[in-house]
Amino acid sequence: MFSSLWADEEGARFGRSLFGSSAAAGTLEHAGLADLRDADGIRLTEALATTGLHLGTLSQAQAELDRVAAYLELHIEQGPVLEALDQPLGAVLGIMGVQRFTLTFRGQAAHSGTTPMALRQDAFLAAARFTQEIYAASITLGGVCTAGRVVTRPGVVNCVVEECVLTLEQRCLDAEALTAMAARVHDLAGAVAASGGCSVEIQPLWTIAPVPFDPQLILLCEETIRNLTGNACRLPSGAIHDASSMARRGIPIAMLFVRSRGGLSHTPLEDTDEADLLLGVRVLAGWAGRVMVWL
Amino acid sequence: MFSSLWADEEGARFGRSLFGSSAAAGTLEHAGLADLRDADGIRLTEALATTGLHLGTLSQAQAELDRVAAYLELHIEQGPVLEALDQPLGAVLGIMGVQRFTLTFRGQAAHSGTTPMALRQDAFLAAARFTQEIYAASITLGGVCTAGRVVTRPGVVNCVVEECVLTLEQRCLDAEALTAMAARVHDLAGAVAASGGCSVEIQPLWTIAPVPFDPQLILLCEETIRNLTGNACRLPSGAIHDASSMARRGIPIAMLFVRSRGGLSHTPLEDTDEADLLLGVRVLAGWAGRVMVWL
Repeated sequence: MFSSLWADEEGARFGRSLFGSSAAAGTLEHAGLADLRDADGIRLTEALATTGLHLGTLSQAQAELDRVAAYLELHIEQGPVLEALDQPLGAVLGIMGVQRFTLTFRGQAAHSGTTPMALRQDAFLAAARFTQEIYAASITLGGVCTAGRVVTRPGVVNCVVEECVLTLEQRCLDAEALTAMAARVHDLAGAVAASGGCSVEIQPLWTIAPVPFDPQLILLCEETIRNLTGNACRLPSGAIHDASSMARRGIPIAMLFVRSRGGLSHTPLEDTDEADLLLGVRVLAGWAGRVMVWL
Repeated sequence: MFSSLWADEEGARFGRSLFGSSAAAGTLEHAGLADLRDADGIRLTEALATTGLHLGTLSQAQAELDRVAAYLELHIEQGPVLEALDQPLGAVLGIMGVQRFTLTFRGQAAHSGTTPMALRQDAFLAAARFTQEIYAASITLGGVCTAGRVVTRPGVVNCVVEECVLTLEQRCLDAEALTAMAARVHDLAGAVAASGGCSVEIQPLWTIAPVPFDPQLILLCEETIRNLTGNACRLPSGAIHDASSMARRGIPIAMLFVRSRGGLSHTPLEDTDEADLLLGVRVLAGWAGRVMVWL
């Protein structure tokens, strides 16, 4: 049993998320690494040199995982679920898969005064209807769905919107449900656009498969939580973690979440109660012991 | 009886719409006129001088209207209604009033993966629901409604929208209905925002009252159209015209619309069939004759 802290999980400094864990897992993409610089212009290679490392030594980290039988990770939740459930800790079921699209609804620009409602081809109205319907469909399928960026053209007060571009992101722990959610994007966007006299173009932006965790490790995590707190709950992770690098290496994994105050993350307000942190460390230790026995 | 062509109805050169007709009606706002320049930097005062006019002589135009008993205006429709009705001409009922608002829906930015749908305060979802509902309510009240510009913040693919700003314009020929439409903006925006855990701020941008036309002039216009074409229809004007300046002067007014090809206007594609134009001129002459008899 050994513990690790991975380098630059967020990719905040050089833009490569899961940097340390993917190097150890052997999944780090080496192309372009030599050109990476941080916001101060410091090269990744220079930053590595200060720790005695260079790009050629990164792959040596893989040897560390050769004798690893299971991987357990303790992390803050970065969301509001545990707080809403009034639970300090939760066993994580897996990491949601993600798929992102850009949708471009196209209608016809028209004078906002002289064009009766029935004769309009309003691209924003189509996008607004689609958003409501795809949110509902995604919830039904057990996932989450977000329209994050919306742009209207020509985008003036007295003109019917000719073109509305929106980004859509869907996440789900279940791979089949995620596939069904993508199918609903195409079906609903096409139907809503057509019913409003518009067309729609759908561009896939990015996709990553879900990472379900090991059922036995989840069970042992839950047992440990229940043993120490008298209660236990399960929740999926909507964010990506270093654990996903280990999963790609074929190592059985699971995670333990500690409650985040106000569900806030990636802001200076991100915080977790010390009592919860302590409980998290105690459960991690107990969980690791149970896993050793099981192995 | 005399005919007129008004200077710069659109305000396309110096930004002041209804320039000539408001000068004649005595409703032209003189403040700032001396500073106006066109896109080439030519002052309004210089442009006036080339025709022998200056700012001080503009008010002399008012005398032209002293003995005017009625005002008839021939104009292209600039919309798709007559084409949809398969009619070359239409009697205009009046000019719609206009009211414009900026609505700012405010929710809570949140991680698109870790925040369950039920715990979100999604400002864009609120704006999308509101748009559908206010469109439906405005149609029920007999008006038109347009969300033209929509902006989301932070506006990134993996973040629930914290703030959505949209412009909303409503137009209607009936003043009471327009007031009711404004009340629906407040009611619906407040209800939709609250149901989604958001707040909403509504800023009035601009408003102008409807200009209903003279019932007897409309009737005579219809009779003339029917006499020459065998059929006649009535429609409102969603755009503003020089006739509204005459209405402010207290002169009975009405307008005659000629069909626009494809309903297009304010584009190089704007066009009207010559046969329709000819019919328009003939009806205008016949209509003026009937009005003289009536007066």
